[in-house]
Amino acid sequence: SLRRLHLARKGTMGLTEVAPASLGHVYAMILAGGSGTRFWPLSRRRRPKQLLKLFGSESLLQQAVGRLEGLVPPSRTYVFTSKTIRSEVCHQLSRIPSRQIVAEPASRNTAPAIGLAACEILRHDPEGIMVVLPSDHLVARPSVFRRALQAGCQLASERDCSVVIGIKPTRPETGYGYIRRGKKGRRIAGLEVFPVRQFTEKPDAPVARRYFRSGDYLWNGGMFIWKASLLMANLRQFQPQMARGLEKIARAGGIRSGNVLKEIYPRLKNLSIDYALMEKIPNIFAVAADMGWSDVGSWAAAYEQSPRGKAGNSAPANAILLDSHQNMVVSSRKLVAAVGVENLVIVETEDALLVCSRVRAQDVGKIVKELNRRGLKHLL
Amino acid sequence: SLRRLHLARKGTMGLTEVAPASLGHVYAMILAGGSGTRFWPLSRRRRPKQLLKLFGSESLLQQAVGRLEGLVPPSRTYVFTSKTIRSEVCHQLSRIPSRQIVAEPASRNTAPAIGLAACEILRHDPEGIMVVLPSDHLVARPSVFRRALQAGCQLASERDCSVVIGIKPTRPETGYGYIRRGKKGRRIAGLEVFPVRQFTEKPDAPVARRYFRSGDYLWNGGMFIWKASLLMANLRQFQPQMARGLEKIARAGGIRSGNVLKEIYPRLKNLSIDYALMEKIPNIFAVAADMGWSDVGSWAAAYEQSPRGKAGNSAPANAILLDSHQNMVVSSRKLVAAVGVENLVIVETEDALLVCSRVRAQDVGKIVKELNRRGLKHLL
Repeated sequence: SLRRLHLARKGTMGLTEVAPASLGHVYAMILAGGSGTRFWPLSRRRRPKQLLKLFGSESLLQQAVGRLEGLVPPSRTYVFTSKTIRSEVCHQLSRIPSRQIVAEPASRNTAPAIGLAACEILRHDPEGIMVVLPSDHLVARPSVFRRALQAGCQLASERDCSVVIGIKPTRPETGYGYIRRGKKGRRIAGLEVFPVRQFTEKPDAPVARRYFRSGDYLWNGGMFIWKASLLMANLRQFQPQMARGLEKIARAGGIRSGNVLKEIYPRLKNLSIDYALMEKIPNIFAVAADMGWSDVGSWAAAYEQSPRGKAGNSAPANAILLDSHQNMVVSSRKLVAAVGVENLVIVETEDALLVCSRVRAQDVGKIVKELNRRGLKHLL
Repeated sequence: SLRRLHLARKGTMGLTEVAPASLGHVYAMILAGGSGTRFWPLSRRRRPKQLLKLFGSESLLQQAVGRLEGLVPPSRTYVFTSKTIRSEVCHQLSRIPSRQIVAEPASRNTAPAIGLAACEILRHDPEGIMVVLPSDHLVARPSVFRRALQAGCQLASERDCSVVIGIKPTRPETGYGYIRRGKKGRRIAGLEVFPVRQFTEKPDAPVARRYFRSGDYLWNGGMFIWKASLLMANLRQFQPQMARGLEKIARAGGIRSGNVLKEIYPRLKNLSIDYALMEKIPNIFAVAADMGWSDVGSWAAAYEQSPRGKAGNSAPANAILLDSHQNMVVSSRKLVAAVGVENLVIVETEDALLVCSRVRAQDVGKIVKELNRRGLKHLL
């Protein structure tokens, strides 16, 4: 692949062009194990955010897979998820072979899952490049995402480095991790590429403002690219215990190792890839992409990303909204009417109704806590 | 009855006591033909306000009949309503003989209906006293209502006068008609009785304030008492055309006159009893009653009359309301959750959801107009 890439680049393609041949070894790993509560009552334990059709006719998960079309085929796409929702994930992703849709035996955050995927990829392709992607984010400009992914694969292939796709910040957000980039950038596929100086955790508001003003920071959207072999080498160096566990699993058959997986995996350290590796390893590059990204972290964020009418309402076509502005209305079936209301989130499902001030959307999880406390399992 | 009444009063009962014997000739006429839109989506064409269980387990209509218990028996209670809802009225009032639940052939406001009821009562009892009552109002202190009714019947019987039960105003309301009372009052059954000087229509705000401050005005809650013979005499004098039509119907069998009723009734003048008679006739007395009356004219009024928790919310027991205040929540079945919302009316039914600012509750009818315009008959 590297050879083919170099040949291609020496041919008609310039440095800013992408060599499609470099994609032959690329594997995608979609992280679809999330189980948030902030989209209640639409999201439930068995129907978390990534499975919801919040925007259009496809779920966020389906959109995440769809964005890979022509870049990574279903035969090289892995989806890691939980037992609870695996069957629905299989249902939504009918083109992906179901053996590649993996239910983690226990939720151990991203590092063990990524390590397990790397082992699996290495079984098939010692030169495999893995693209790690979230399943519950929104990308308004998929063409930019695709160019970023191509640029990242080229970098990971050429330089055997770790790559993060960084998002150009559009506001001093305190809810995301940030990436401090080096000064010098080069361009690949029309996108700027920077050496990474530091991964930082979610900042407080003054720090976020400083990051935003400086122009030296990117948002960390959880999109990573590296060779599976490099990932494992890094794990061996920085998380040796985890690496040993994963290698035991790999020797027993990896994702098909049955009881070995069930025994060892739940005892792996519960660590995010950011904490386990990204904050520690050298040789990381960031591809800066202005892809209209949102992690859609709440109903308020979903509102911001939704098409809205001239009164600023995002609502079903048949809703009747009189003197009502800047509301988000989601209804499964019944007619919704509003009079004189503003900045509300109104979500109606078969068995529950939420009416929430838009600025309080981050507190929807408290409703779920209360349902839990009351033992109303059918609403969780 | 008069004789019995006088005997009773000469006996152990004082002037402020009510002689139960005077009730032997009393007939109730409940007006249950209303068809408002302001309680949508709970109220529908086939389920108007009087049929709704807005307060407790009984509908307003059932409460209106229930308040008569021990005063007027079902055998002397008539209910006038529309064809659309008659069967539901019969269902709700199973103790009232169904032949006494009359579907008006056409909606002609209150005067023709009251006249028709008077004709019916006169067929049974030339001395019959009729009590005309709305079916869709709320009375928080039924014992005061009952004393007012007894006092009114005593007056109507003794003096052959017209009686209105007047409500002591609690605010300068512009939505009601007012009754200007004379200066001198006497007391019957512990309630003050005044000669009526004038019936006035709904005032504007400055006039309402003047009425309220003066102390000389009562609200007209549409509760009237008179002998059926007096009512007919007054109709003959002040609405001779209507009286002639009614007498033709009466000669043909009254409420059982079939085609005669169907032919003549719809051509009677469409007049309220207030306009047809009360503003014109002499010899009216008002019984002033502080009965906790409300016409419950909107969801906002229903909120005011509902029991509320310490955050000022009126809501089902299972609702989850976080940092939410002064809301009215009505839900048939599903769980309602709210976060950070105030002064809303939230009403959820099987097929529709309303979210309305409480101060805009009077505009709910506009939603119904819009449904009409869109031809969504199943939601009307």
